[in-house]
Order: sequence, then structure tokens, then C-alpha cells
Amino acid sequence: MTTLNTKKALLLVAHGSRRAASNLEVFRLAEQLQVDLNADFAMVKAAFLELAEPSIPEGIQYCADAGATNVIVLPYFLNTGRHVAEDIPAEIDIARQQLPNLTIQLQTHVGAMTDMQSLLSKAALQH
Amino acid sequence: MTTLNTKKALLLVAHGSRRAASNLEVFRLAEQLQVDLNADFAMVKAAFLELAEPSIPEGIQYCADAGATNVIVLPYFLNTGRHVAEDIPAEIDIARQQLPNLTIQLQTHVGAMTDMQSLLSKAALQH
Repeated sequence: MTTLNTKKALLLVAHGSRRAASNLEVFRLAEQLQVDLNADFAMVKAAFLELAEPSIPEGIQYCADAGATNVIVLPYFLNTGRHVAEDIPAEIDIARQQLPNLTIQLQTHVGAMTDMQSLLSKAALQH
Repeated sequence: MTTLNTKKALLLVAHGSRRAASNLEVFRLAEQLQVDLNADFAMVKAAFLELAEPSIPEGIQYCADAGATNVIVLPYFLNTGRHVAEDIPAEIDIARQQLPNLTIQLQTHVGAMTDMQSLLSKAALQH
């Protein structure tokens, strides 16, 4: 069977901050990614592990309410710390129990991208 | 006057984690950057804001002891949260007081790089 009616959502998950300006950066980034990824994702939304809203299950619920059948969760984290290894998967499990008919896929965190090293080299030389 | 005797160090500053594996990722990244940046930096070291060692002032001291005259501090952070906006600059101030003859430059954090958006788009499509 083909999945002609698949409607994909991307959920960008950041840590969350007590500083509103920091959380706004994440919402803006999601908006920019929506433009870049228009051909591949019906929607791009932001969610936070802690200190800000929406939470990860809330963000996933929002995507489902907006018609998504598949949600790709992309952790906007650099290292494989506790948040990436344990806390985000636990939040995904909560969402999966709440929305058993939704396909939720947890993507590798951004820091694991091979391009990160060249981005850092470039950043180091920008002084 | 030219600065013929300048010896530059890059200090990659991460948050730090209770998970040793996460901190090891940062040390390994610094080693890889040392190879990439060999022409521009005499040394590349790692330091942590909290939960792991060396601290930022300790990392800067280490660079100075190894002969660095200039230390570029590159925050391996994504958002302009409290850590980037307040905590890291405060640690730099401590180091500047301890080492008044050293030139310490705080670089923009990695998340502010314009290339980050395209890296995220690429990460989103890797499922």
C-alpha cells in the first residue's frame, strides 16, 4: 500500500529557556524551516523539553489536530546528554500513548550531524 | 606593531553533562577541530560551563600555561539563553581578572551561525 494521504509534520524540539527571547529564536527558526522544507513537510512547529511551552506532547498533539499523520521530532540539541538520551524519548512515549494512531519518529539530534564540525571550524574563524 | 609572536588557542565551551559520554563527545570534537584548524590555532581545547571539568577559567589557564597569548572562546550552544547571555561572559570576566596579560575573545555562539538553518533542514530530511 502506498501512503498517498500521508501528511508530515516536523517538530523542532529545543531545551527551553527562562528567557523569552531565547524561546522566540526557536519559534522563528521553525518558521524559517517551514519555508525551506515546504516541499517535504505540511507544517513545521516548535516545542520545548522544559521551561517553555508547548511541551513535546502538546506540540505533537497540535500537529495531529492540524491534520498530520506523521510527526518527525528533531531534537535541537548538541550533545548526547541525559536530555537527548532519556528525557526526550520519554516525552515521545507519552505522546505515543496519547495518540496511538499517529506515526511519531524521533530523529537524531542536530549535534550528531557530520556537518557540525565544519560549521564549528567556520565559527572559530569568524573573529 | 605587528603581532609576530601571537599564539592563538581555541577554547570550545560546552554546557557539560553528568553523562561522561556526552563530555567525551566535546573533547573528541575539540581534537577533530585541532586537525581542521591547525593552520590557524596552535591549540584547540574543551571546557565546560558546569557539571564537568575543566571549567572555563581552568581551560583558559591551561591555554595560557601552554603558551597561548590569545584565546578565542567559542560557545558550543544553540540559543541565546541565560548561559550564553550571562553565565559564559561572567566566567570570561573571572579569567580576565586572573590573567590580565592574556587576550581573551568571546566568539558568537554556534547557534547564531547562518549555516545552522541549512544544517537543520538537512537533518530534518535524514529520516
